Amino acid sequence: MTVKLIGITGGSGSGKSTVVKRIEQASPECLLIAQDNYYKSAPEVTNETITSVNFDQPGAFDMDLMLDNLDDLKNGRPTMMPQYDFKTHSRKAEFVRLEPKKLIIVDGLMVLYDERIRNLLDLKIYVETPPDIRFIRRLKRDIVERGRTMESVIEQYMNVVRPGHYNFVEPTKEFADLIIPEGGYNENAMKVLFSFVESVTRSL
Amino acid sequence: MTVKLIGITGGSGSGKSTVVKRIEQASPECLLIAQDNYYKSAPEVTNETITSVNFDQPGAFDMDLMLDNLDDLKNGRPTMMPQYDFKTHSRKAEFVRLEPKKLIIVDGLMVLYDERIRNLLDLKIYVETPPDIRFIRRLKRDIVERGRTMESVIEQYMNVVRPGHYNFVEPTKEFADLIIPEGGYNENAMKVLFSFVESVTRSL
Repeated sequence: MTVKLIGITGGSGSGKSTVVKRIEQASPECLLIAQDNYYKSAPEVTNETITSVNFDQPGAFDMDLMLDNLDDLKNGRPTMMPQYDFKTHSRKAEFVRLEPKKLIIVDGLMVLYDERIRNLLDLKIYVETPPDIRFIRRLKRDIVERGRTMESVIEQYMNVVRPGHYNFVEPTKEFADLIIPEGGYNENAMKVLFSFVESVTRSL
Repeated sequence: MTVKLIGITGGSGSGKSTVVKRIEQASPECLLIAQDNYYKSAPEVTNETITSVNFDQPGAFDMDLMLDNLDDLKNGRPTMMPQYDFKTHSRKAEFVRLEPKKLIIVDGLMVLYDERIRNLLDLKIYVETPPDIRFIRRLKRDIVERGRTMESVIEQYMNVVRPGHYNFVEPTKEFADLIIPEGGYNENAMKVLFSFVESVTRSL
């Protein structure tokens, strides 16, 4: 079996996860991997102290393990993926066994950052969305889903999310094969992606 | 027959024509239309006076005729396309009869400029290439294919091509569904486009 790997990146709130979810709905034959699973444990963090930790830099991720997992899957081998608990900010004890599929999609803030990982990817996508729109989406999500206050979200955004974006995420746009404005909310781009996903899962 | 229209734009030298040529090679079922055919006649121009004419603004194109032609094709009707002679800088006497095909691809500097034309397009693509690379490609092309001098190419570039790009071409990127870095030289993006072209020409 030939395995194709698609990497999808973009800033926080860009709409990259929506792209991934819509591909999942359209094609049961693909395996989705969120880079968030590879966060290193930061167990001392609470919602009160969260703004003191920088999750928006490459060192926050276990790139070596992610590379190993992707390399296994690319070569048709099952692999053990870590899981991250956003409530305790630490890696869970249990790993998940992943079986290779024809199409693997990995999404996250720094999917295009590590050259070794880039070299494994068959298609590199950058989702580009205006920064104010991205901030508003993040603000809503963190308040509703993660029980944060507006002040805390703004402080974290200004201190680490925004600098991290311009230092580490936006510069990886130059490695992208395709740039998708607005991500999963862009119907015409999704049609094009669906046709590619279908051709990959059908032909191999 | 359902007809799909793809519009491809980008700056001079961006690689948009290469995208179109490669789609043509991959799919005989599509009809290509260059916006250059819709230049209005400027018969007084010679290579000596060419820098005094602005070909890089929307008024240089016969948008109404282009709209009519695309509307005909989109609705399954044959149409008569004008032809432009770059040697005499004027419209040729003969028009070309175009028969509708399942897929129509139109490329040019201002394909996304006119809202009426944008509304006809099923997919809008912007080819993005760094300005120095674009200039170098244009310089080589105009010297080799159009018998121009380096000084004349630079003068025209600084006086009209560059301002026209930032005034009229680059702003239309916001209407794009997909942004392709480097255009036809981007192999991974071309694979995605080919899969879309194939799905359109196969399924209708």
